[in-house]
Amino acid sequence: MQTMTDETVASFRPYVDDLTADARHAFRHIRQADTATRNGILIKLAELLETDERQKDILTANALDLEAAVSSGMSSAMKDRLRLDVPRIVAMAKAVREIAAFADPVGEVIRGQTLVSGVQMVQKRVPLGVVFTVYESRPNVTVDVGALCIKSGNAAILRGGKEAFHSNVALYRIFVEAIEICGLPSGVLQLVEETDRACMLALLERDDRIDLVVPRGGEGLIRFVSQNTRIPVVKHDKGVCTMFIDESADLDQAIEVAANAKLQRPSVCNAIENLLVHSRFPYTEQLLAGLALRGARLIGCERSHAIYPSVEKMTDADLEYGSEYLDERLSVKIVDSLEQAVDFIYKYGSGHSEAILTRSLESARSFERMVDSAAVFVNCSTRFHDGGQMGMGAEVGISTGRLHVRGPMGVRDLTTTTYVMSGEGQIRS
Amino acid sequence: MQTMTDETVASFRPYVDDLTADARHAFRHIRQADTATRNGILIKLAELLETDERQKDILTANALDLEAAVSSGMSSAMKDRLRLDVPRIVAMAKAVREIAAFADPVGEVIRGQTLVSGVQMVQKRVPLGVVFTVYESRPNVTVDVGALCIKSGNAAILRGGKEAFHSNVALYRIFVEAIEICGLPSGVLQLVEETDRACMLALLERDDRIDLVVPRGGEGLIRFVSQNTRIPVVKHDKGVCTMFIDESADLDQAIEVAANAKLQRPSVCNAIENLLVHSRFPYTEQLLAGLALRGARLIGCERSHAIYPSVEKMTDADLEYGSEYLDERLSVKIVDSLEQAVDFIYKYGSGHSEAILTRSLESARSFERMVDSAAVFVNCSTRFHDGGQMGMGAEVGISTGRLHVRGPMGVRDLTTTTYVMSGEGQIRS
Repeated sequence: MQTMTDETVASFRPYVDDLTADARHAFRHIRQADTATRNGILIKLAELLETDERQKDILTANALDLEAAVSSGMSSAMKDRLRLDVPRIVAMAKAVREIAAFADPVGEVIRGQTLVSGVQMVQKRVPLGVVFTVYESRPNVTVDVGALCIKSGNAAILRGGKEAFHSNVALYRIFVEAIEICGLPSGVLQLVEETDRACMLALLERDDRIDLVVPRGGEGLIRFVSQNTRIPVVKHDKGVCTMFIDESADLDQAIEVAANAKLQRPSVCNAIENLLVHSRFPYTEQLLAGLALRGARLIGCERSHAIYPSVEKMTDADLEYGSEYLDERLSVKIVDSLEQAVDFIYKYGSGHSEAILTRSLESARSFERMVDSAAVFVNCSTRFHDGGQMGMGAEVGISTGRLHVRGPMGVRDLTTTTYVMSGEGQIRS
Repeated sequence: MQTMTDETVASFRPYVDDLTADARHAFRHIRQADTATRNGILIKLAELLETDERQKDILTANALDLEAAVSSGMSSAMKDRLRLDVPRIVAMAKAVREIAAFADPVGEVIRGQTLVSGVQMVQKRVPLGVVFTVYESRPNVTVDVGALCIKSGNAAILRGGKEAFHSNVALYRIFVEAIEICGLPSGVLQLVEETDRACMLALLERDDRIDLVVPRGGEGLIRFVSQNTRIPVVKHDKGVCTMFIDESADLDQAIEVAANAKLQRPSVCNAIENLLVHSRFPYTEQLLAGLALRGARLIGCERSHAIYPSVEKMTDADLEYGSEYLDERLSVKIVDSLEQAVDFIYKYGSGHSEAILTRSLESARSFERMVDSAAVFVNCSTRFHDGGQMGMGAEVGISTGRLHVRGPMGVRDLTTTTYVMSGEGQIRS
């Protein structure tokens, strides 16, 4: 997959060796830091972000990135993601204060027991290790992910996008200032200042020094990372999410909830891409008309087109039902049973979020039991699949993997566990 | 790393495509099977293993493997691992009944909350998926791992060693008989009948169909698997475990516990390889003499040799302190502080099991806090790092990874979670 030559990767190895050695060393310090110290760094960071002086530094750096964005012809949507202003910096500080206010996951006792041998066993949460996050344009990720890692006692290596380079460096310097004021080594948070992809490859080789890699961004980035590393990856992959309107669903609720799931923010992973309607649902025409009226652009099967001719016919159904549109398009299909809906989800879905709207308890239970996705919704919008909405606070992302964490990845998921076994000389016989 | 040609791997792809498609399909069935059905398979399997007829089939197959072992000049230790007899088959049946008797991890509710939106959120355990286990000589792994996977609602692909091929096939057929009697598709458990490593590579490519790979065996196997796959791997890696005798330790307890940790079963991963002794511990000579008397073969630093001249001097300390001997050898080092002991563990340990023997509460707490291993032992033997001893029952292995599971991997760790979100038409505003 990689297009870099081996020599280019090799040229970054000394830099990466130093950087990861610093991270490993710093991890030994932060994993022992107490709750007050870790939260103290975050509060200090928030205070610094709220000063005029630091805001000026950030905006100056951001202006450089925006200038480059203009000359490179970046889309206005992308430029908006990149742009910082005082309210956005204040919002970052607020997010950091919220993370500081969370319960500390480190030290939480999960399980404990006095064993037959008399040995007292306690399993408790401890920091995960060195976490490498790769992300794209938005500079606030530098602050968010850095704060989540520090909160949970980890060392973080951050590799942001080239287009936000100056903004990331400015935010990073302020973060390091907060870390040093609180007496921890600056190595606990490192920004990769080489934005060459070959440098990323040199980092992805270090499964001896990095414990977890979290790619946040488009499909291409996620594929690049997972195909080029043996470090465990928590993927925040695409959401091809489906809503099934059962025959007994309420029409008004179906319009409201489907419109919300599709249109409230079409560009995110928990928005739906597919709408399945039971062939015995009596109000399909009204439902589709209602969605079209609210701005959905319907593309569908022959049967849905026959019912509501404004539905555009599909050109390549297999491609379209498997697409994450991230815009107002919505694929429609009429199905004859709940089982057909479930088969469709197995075939096309990405295992992210699926919903059923129904008044039948039996249908709700069957759907819950049969669908194997990170979250299953009954009579509500898939847009609730979000750490904030689900009471977990800020999240690193929404994991579509099945190991370690599935669904929103919060601070607790940035820990591992250790067993402490205490005895009075017990031996195994 | 791989020495197989691409063509050899390609020749196995059609076989692997069918096998993994069957496994995926079967997973949809078993993940919905209720507790009684899954336990029913295990009880039926145990009953079949207890019949004379099936025992005869197994022993006939095992005789073929033993014959081949003799002609290939297998070591007697290896032959012993391979050999089956009626008591060993009865022991397998008993282990399966114990797994059937465990609490069902599937459906366990981990967390639940009514969210601000009024949506009711429940996070519960669901089966993990298709689990691929690669193991070496002992044929009982076919039954143990198969039973753990079925118990937890997963589909399992088993790839045993070539040397146990006939025994594995015989055990597998009985297992499938039990599965079919209980009405589940035989695809939930599949034995890879191609023992060519190129076939393993073709399986390791299928990260689209396999959710987890568990290599059980020597370092070479684990390396081969993790270097050739993008499927998540739970490693059951080597144990380079260290025991630290603090200055205040009790002499008799130190001899007893260190001897148990080293010698009770030297060939396993939770046995110690390194013994560190505080330079102010007053009874080092007696301790080393006591361990030598019990059969430990001591190899050590200059200072330990000066104290007890029977300690053989090291030739290459870096190599020796980092070695997993798996026999009676024990590396000894005199250190001047607890901090030096911890530094040693960071440098040479594999993060498996570390112990301190001390009468000082402060030393115990410091060691617990500073050492970052899967299990930390205070005043007891590292040999307690075991699913059975720790009240979890049978285990897939002991994970030395930091994600998903760290320490003994039991049935609960063969699950993932899903969120069920139930509402009455809630939308996100």
